Amino acid sequence: MMSLFSTWARLLIISAAFTFNCAVADELASWQPGEAKQRLISFVQQVSDANSAHFVAPSERIAVVDNNGTLWAEQPASPQLLFAMAQAKNMVKANPQLGKQAVFSAAADGDIETLRQQGIEGLLQLFIATHVGLPISQFEDRVNDWLAEAKNPETNRLHTQMVYLPMMELVRYLQANDFDIWLVTSGSLGFVRAWSEQLYGIPPDRIIASELKTEFRVLNGRPSLIHMPEVGFINTGGNKAVAINERIGRRPILAIGNSDDDIAMLQWTSAGDGKRLAALIHHTDGEREWAYDKTESASNLDKGLELAPANDWLVVDMKKDWRRVFDWQ
Amino acid sequence: MMSLFSTWARLLIISAAFTFNCAVADELASWQPGEAKQRLISFVQQVSDANSAHFVAPSERIAVVDNNGTLWAEQPASPQLLFAMAQAKNMVKANPQLGKQAVFSAAADGDIETLRQQGIEGLLQLFIATHVGLPISQFEDRVNDWLAEAKNPETNRLHTQMVYLPMMELVRYLQANDFDIWLVTSGSLGFVRAWSEQLYGIPPDRIIASELKTEFRVLNGRPSLIHMPEVGFINTGGNKAVAINERIGRRPILAIGNSDDDIAMLQWTSAGDGKRLAALIHHTDGEREWAYDKTESASNLDKGLELAPANDWLVVDMKKDWRRVFDWQ
Repeated sequence: MMSLFSTWARLLIISAAFTFNCAVADELASWQPGEAKQRLISFVQQVSDANSAHFVAPSERIAVVDNNGTLWAEQPASPQLLFAMAQAKNMVKANPQLGKQAVFSAAADGDIETLRQQGIEGLLQLFIATHVGLPISQFEDRVNDWLAEAKNPETNRLHTQMVYLPMMELVRYLQANDFDIWLVTSGSLGFVRAWSEQLYGIPPDRIIASELKTEFRVLNGRPSLIHMPEVGFINTGGNKAVAINERIGRRPILAIGNSDDDIAMLQWTSAGDGKRLAALIHHTDGEREWAYDKTESASNLDKGLELAPANDWLVVDMKKDWRRVFDWQ
Repeated sequence: MMSLFSTWARLLIISAAFTFNCAVADELASWQPGEAKQRLISFVQQVSDANSAHFVAPSERIAVVDNNGTLWAEQPASPQLLFAMAQAKNMVKANPQLGKQAVFSAAADGDIETLRQQGIEGLLQLFIATHVGLPISQFEDRVNDWLAEAKNPETNRLHTQMVYLPMMELVRYLQANDFDIWLVTSGSLGFVRAWSEQLYGIPPDRIIASELKTEFRVLNGRPSLIHMPEVGFINTGGNKAVAINERIGRRPILAIGNSDDDIAMLQWTSAGDGKRLAALIHHTDGEREWAYDKTESASNLDKGLELAPANDWLVVDMKKDWRRVFDWQ
């Protein structure tokens, strides 16, 4: 009986170990074997293994992940900017007077370069004008209606197809290891929440984003939240670290971004005690995606690359480290 | 065999049902049998029972609960105001010049009435002066050092003993039924987070509070978050509904408060579809706690009582509905 039990037990242990290794290999199947993949797996295994010196309790296993350029493509412009341009086009059609303003005329013409030349003030003006005026739930419906059909102007693929497959595998792998994943984006809360749970499996209370000022009012007896035409919070740079503390209240152990805008988030994550990992996705693949870093105007990665070696930040080379970029490739 | 199994099964079912009824009764043991207790239990059972017409999925089972006067006592002043006064006393001792300002002199003298007469501007000045200047983790240590010894000036009990036992039972009961509980307080984030998990079992990412403006800076090579002497967000009135949407992104199904400051939170919660419950804790017990409502200056309940009947809000009568208020009584 003992011998039969011990044979069974051994078989079960071998089979469990085998399943575990296969599961890890399968879960990150779109990552090339190499340093990046190995560091990610090794980190997750060490913090998840109760017998490891680097074990971290599940409640502290917090990951913060940027969105544009980290989870989905941001070239030739972020989907939210393209959404704002599509809305502006409709607004100009309904009210041609608006087209006399440079921001609206460039947006309606789909002229991203001229639009960017309007500077941050011009872009904010466009965002605010195209994101207010609707109750929050109706705004989310409008975003999803647009997203169901809108395509990337260069690949002609739906934006929902421009999600990075290796990053989705990583998100699932982290979730399977009890990580609590927070999306930390410069995009606006209402826009990102409209689809984040369906597209990424990241629920609405796990989104840290930019926000318009919002007011509570009882309109015709109906309690309502109204977006005001005024910026409430811009979730960029140092504000990402501020918002991570205000929202989560625990310091993340894993941070992933792709631009200098994510440096503070990586610094804040790295500065805690114990095992930590910070990573930058480096857009090096001009064939399968876009190659850009230091000179990219909207989302440059320059100082981040300079800081990475001394801080032991993992730089993911999209061309070298990813076997596939999008699931349709 | 079948008959034995079925006898066992029947016993198990009977025993499970018996255990369930006992468990509910025990979990809210400090509530008097009556309408309030019955409505709370009935609501939780209906939304948690997969066979009920009012079933709500666990991910949507969100409760928002005020803090001062709802979970712990706020008379003769909120613990955070008493903390600020204690800090001010130390500051005046170290720098007597400060005592020439009316706000600091009243605070250092423990003169709550004179302090309140300084108005909201004076109180904000006191809060800001006593809450900035330390890195966030050191500030939390300071709060906990104070809380370990500070006593309510009228009952001479530790503030941690001034927590309402029936409310703690309710929090545990909700958590046992997969409710996600968010603390929604006008208090400041750093103060409340210092003890909320230990005292209430509510973790740091479930605190919606007022906030000082905060900046990220790298000081001597160390990434740091610094509280600025400026208000970032005041979580009162309509702002509670705004913050609930910004932070949770789902409309709560249960809201509990105790003053007119909680009306917007109750209205926002009540206005959704499906089964909902909103409740106000009415301070009616001048013997075991404090009796106050319409004319209380710092936390009045007036319009809330007026709105309750038409909105079907549950008004909890502390004197009538609670068998015990504090666990030491």
